[in-house]
Parts: sequence; C-alpha cells; structure tokens
Amino acid sequence: MISKIDIPKVITLAHGSGGIEMSRLIEYLIFSKVPDKLKKVSYGLGIDFPDDAAAIPINEKEYLVISVDSYTVNPIFFPGGDIGKLAACGSINDVLMLGGKPIAILDSIIVEEGFPIEDLEKIINSFMKVIQEENIALIGGDFKVMPRGQIDKIVITTVGIGVANRIIVDKNIKPGDKIIVSDYIANHGAVIMALQYGIDFSKSNLISDCKPLTKLMIPLLEKYSDYIHAARDPTRGGIAMALNDWAKASNTIIVIEEDKIPIRDEVKRYCEMIGIDPLYLACEGVALLAVDESVADEIVEFMHKLGFENAGIIGEVKKSERFKGIVLYKTSVGGFRILEPPRGELVPRIC
Amino acid sequence: MISKIDIPKVITLAHGSGGIEMSRLIEYLIFSKVPDKLKKVSYGLGIDFPDDAAAIPINEKEYLVISVDSYTVNPIFFPGGDIGKLAACGSINDVLMLGGKPIAILDSIIVEEGFPIEDLEKIINSFMKVIQEENIALIGGDFKVMPRGQIDKIVITTVGIGVANRIIVDKNIKPGDKIIVSDYIANHGAVIMALQYGIDFSKSNLISDCKPLTKLMIPLLEKYSDYIHAARDPTRGGIAMALNDWAKASNTIIVIEEDKIPIRDEVKRYCEMIGIDPLYLACEGVALLAVDESVADEIVEFMHKLGFENAGIIGEVKKSERFKGIVLYKTSVGGFRILEPPRGELVPRIC
Repeated sequence: MISKIDIPKVITLAHGSGGIEMSRLIEYLIFSKVPDKLKKVSYGLGIDFPDDAAAIPINEKEYLVISVDSYTVNPIFFPGGDIGKLAACGSINDVLMLGGKPIAILDSIIVEEGFPIEDLEKIINSFMKVIQEENIALIGGDFKVMPRGQIDKIVITTVGIGVANRIIVDKNIKPGDKIIVSDYIANHGAVIMALQYGIDFSKSNLISDCKPLTKLMIPLLEKYSDYIHAARDPTRGGIAMALNDWAKASNTIIVIEEDKIPIRDEVKRYCEMIGIDPLYLACEGVALLAVDESVADEIVEFMHKLGFENAGIIGEVKKSERFKGIVLYKTSVGGFRILEPPRGELVPRIC
Repeated sequence: MISKIDIPKVITLAHGSGGIEMSRLIEYLIFSKVPDKLKKVSYGLGIDFPDDAAAIPINEKEYLVISVDSYTVNPIFFPGGDIGKLAACGSINDVLMLGGKPIAILDSIIVEEGFPIEDLEKIINSFMKVIQEENIALIGGDFKVMPRGQIDKIVITTVGIGVANRIIVDKNIKPGDKIIVSDYIANHGAVIMALQYGIDFSKSNLISDCKPLTKLMIPLLEKYSDYIHAARDPTRGGIAMALNDWAKASNTIIVIEEDKIPIRDEVKRYCEMIGIDPLYLACEGVALLAVDESVADEIVEFMHKLGFENAGIIGEVKKSERFKGIVLYKTSVGGFRILEPPRGELVPRIC
C-alpha cells in the first residue's frame, strides 16, 4: 500500500522513466482506485497483472489483445527509424509479447502548429511501411493540433490489436526457467541517449533496434507457445525493469550473467561515458523470454535459424527461501550484485 | 483525389479543428496510402467509412467496437468537468454512437514535468468516477512525462472498447429520415471558448455538457436499433460537421430548421460576441441521430421519458437530383442557406 505521504508534490521526469517512481505513482493514483471487478473483463487480463497489453476473451478459444502506448521520442528522427516507425513497431511488439497475432492498429497523432507537412508525411510513411509489410489493418485514429509552443513537435499514441489463442502472462515464470534475449540489447536507448547528449557517432554503425518482432514471435508462438512462460519487449527501464517485474510477480530470484548478455561495444562505451548501465536502457526490437528449461537450447537454436543469430540464454530463474523477487547479476569476474529496478531520471523521451 | 499541391507546407490550427482542412490532410497523408484490404478487419468497419469508432467482428453475432481519441482541452479544468471526465465521456460516447455497449477502457497519460500531483489526482479521480459509475473496466494504459516546456500540462488519450450486435454506420441514412438532437447543443464549446477568450461567465449557470450518454443510448439501442440509421457524438466541428459528413456519405440533402435547434440563450450570446456559429461548436454529451421517419416522434417521446427533455426533431433527410451531399439551414424567417462544413481555425484545444 502506497500512502499519499510517499508521493511528492509535483511530477518529475523520474515518474516517466518506467522505474520504481512510476510504478509507485501509478499504483497510488490509478490501480489502487479501481475495484478488483473492474480491473479486467471476464477472465481476461487487465490491470490485475499489468503487462505489455490487455486481453479480452472473445469466444471460447480466443482473446483479443489490446495495447496502448504514447510515443514521445526526442529526437523524432534517429538512425534506424523515426517516431512513426517506433509507434508502429512498439504496439505490434506489445501485442506479440502477450501472445497475440497483430491484426489491426489505430493511431492518434498530436502535432504542433507550424510543424512541416513534409516531416509529418515522412513519419506517417514510416508508420505505414511497417503496418503494410506486416499486413496489419489501420482501422481508425484521431488527429489533433496544439498551438505553437504547447507541444514539442509531435506525439503519437498507437493502439495495437491482435488475436491470441493463449495469452502469455508474466506471472507464469517458474524456477528452472531460462532467460533468453533475442538480440543485442540497449541499441535504441544508446542511440537516443547519444543524440540527446550530443555525442558524435556519425562514424559508428550503431542504429536503433526499432523493428517489429513478428517474424520471431509468430513462429515461436506456433511451435513453443506452451513453453514460453513470459515474454517482454523491454523498452523503458530496459531488461533490468522487465526482469525485476518478473522476479517480483513470480516470487523468484532471477540470475543473469554479464558474460552472456549481448551488448555492442559502442553501446558499452557510450554508457560508460554517460554513466548509465545498458541494462536500464530501452530496446525497441528485442524479445526477452522466460522459457521452460527442457526446450531452452532448442528455442535458442530455432531463433538462430529465424535469423536472430545473437539470441542466447542470459540467465535462469531460481527458487530461494531467503531472498524473493530480486534479480542477481553475476559479473564476469564471478561476483554477484543485486540488479535493482531502475530509479530516478534516466533518459527522458526515449520512446 | 487530393494532390500534394492542395496541401500547405506547415500544419495550421485549422488542420486540427475537425473541418474541411483536416479531412483533406488526413485523406492525403493517411487514407489514400492504405490499400483497401487494410482499411478494415474482415467485414468490420475501419477507415473505409471513417466514423466515431471502428468495429471488428468477433463471432457470428457480435462486433468489438474500438475508439481512440486524444484529449488536449485547454483549460484542463472547466465548469462542468475537467480533462479526465472529458476523456472518459468522449470515448464512452464514441463507442455508444457506433452501437456498442462500453465494457472497457485504456488510457495513456502524458504529463509535463512539474505538474502538480494534486491536479493529476483530481483529473484521474474524475476519469475514475465516470468509468466506475458506468461499470466499465480499466484494463491498461501508458504514462509518460515530458520535460518542462515540451508539453502544455497534460494530454490524455483514451481507448474505448464496447460490444455491439449491430453497428450503426453513418452511410445508412436515407431520404425521409428525421434528424434528432438529444439536448441543447454547443454548451461544451461555448464554455471552453468563453474561458479562452476571457469572457466572465461566473454569474451564468452555463456548464459544459460533458457526460456519458449510456443512459440514453443503451435503452435506445435495445428498443430502436433497427430504426437508428446514423448516430454521432458531434464534438469538434459541431453538428454542422456531422450533418455535412452524413449528407456526403449518403448523397442526400439534410434540411435543418433554426427554430427547432435547442440552443441556450447564453450560448447564442457568447457566439455572437465572438462571431462563431454555435452549429460549429463542440458538444460533449449530446447525441445526434438520424432515425426512420415511422418512429421519429415515438423516439423523441422515449427520449423525453429517459430524462432528455430537450430532445427534439430538428430536420430531415431529403432526396434531390440537383444538389447532393449538402446541408440546408432554414432560418426562422423562412429563408434557406447552405450550412457549409467548418473551415479554418475555430477554437483550438476544445476537446
């Protein structure tokens, strides 16, 4: 229970960075005020167990999966994408991570008076390119203009809709499960951070990882649905936040190993320069999975065959009596430290 | 077909006011770029016939109805409501107007760094009050913070979800249909406009009409579903925009009569002071219906019994060979003029 005393008087950037402060604020302002019966529809998933998306049962065999996200990324154009591509990919990935096959999308665009139509067209074209390649219908939206100075350029809110036979709910993680990441982590976060800090990386080939994960997740869901106990698109707060959420939701300990986590050298370098741990930085095209140990190696091999050649096991879920709901980080020299959930202001407007 | 030549180089406030400029821009930037097969899901409703909401068939008898709207109203607190109440009511009403019974909602809140938590709590409480009274589940959302000066206070995007047995699509209007409004029009628009222009109306009892229309629409849909040919929540662009959309979609002429349109004297007075026609101002708790002429009087009587005592027939749909897709306004002295769809900047951030 979070009391009013623990809540500060004004909103800070930390409230928006996907960490502890945000969880506490949302719990206090929103979740605690909704009676249990209004936290979900029927036997679906809602804010009873907050996840990447919600699910509504639509017939005996299927759920409709729905996600909503507002994209406020700054700058709006970045190596590897723009706010339009990000808005499409983010919502597609959220639907996938709950076990849904994306079928439709809605978008609500808010733009600043004076914004160049040419830029808006580029952004919308990026959005369109993704959804058309993914064969997703655009079924509705909204469009608002705010006077000059009342919004910084453009914000897009996207609603992703999919259909699932079985939903993947994070709380199903159990001891023995292996933790897999599908790719290099933190590329998106590092790119946005470098741009915001004015780091010149024009000579680098680092780009945002922003992409839809359909080609990874649909085959995985078809073949291994029963063995995937949790799936997450680790955006704000990075894999550190996702893993802490999982450990807490399942009352387990999750141990990950530094040596096994795929991170590009450039990303490590930028993070060192700025003093941010890459485990806290957003990915926008990476899947974090907890899978049954019996098929973990097989799943990794399958992911490699699907073209995700950097996929690998980075850790495992353990049962423990003494500690519960924590993440342990095993360093390359063999020591252990607790990987805390993110706190404070990391990078504003990262997604 | 709108060519690039007709589109200006930068976004203007007019692009966000729900009128002609917005329709043209959206057609050019978005609708024209989506292949027909990706404009809807199956035999549902999408951007093939843009309406208050979209619909996805979920089984042989039912549709899931989905709306998304971003609320940017300024000021965020106003007589009769605040941005939280508006966000809840707006999405509930959009679902209702497509024939859906609202069952769930998601909200994405973007707030400015430094925003008082106390105000945020008031706004969220208003939102919660509406959805709890309406027995609607809150199943998900997003929360972002933008640095000081990068967004003006707060913007809320709401996703409304409902279930419909039959969807009410505006294009089903036919000659003979009667046009009904459920209440005084333009109260919301007049309140926001008066506040933005600094008109002192503290001595007036004028408040925004912002309210959910469940108690009107659910009984109407249960009893008269087959006879309601179109329904609209006339927000931005007011009843002028909605009626023009209807006339165009159905290739008819719609004639409305000045004497029959319920408008409060104060609203008329403020509109005269500022030089805006109240027919172009937003309502946020008014239903505009086109109903079969055979039951029009009966429906009005039913609406009165439901407590909507100002409901009345304001006009009718006519077939014509010479003119098509226009709205005629019969003045109290007996003359006729064409009621054009809204153009230019009306009132920014009205909803």
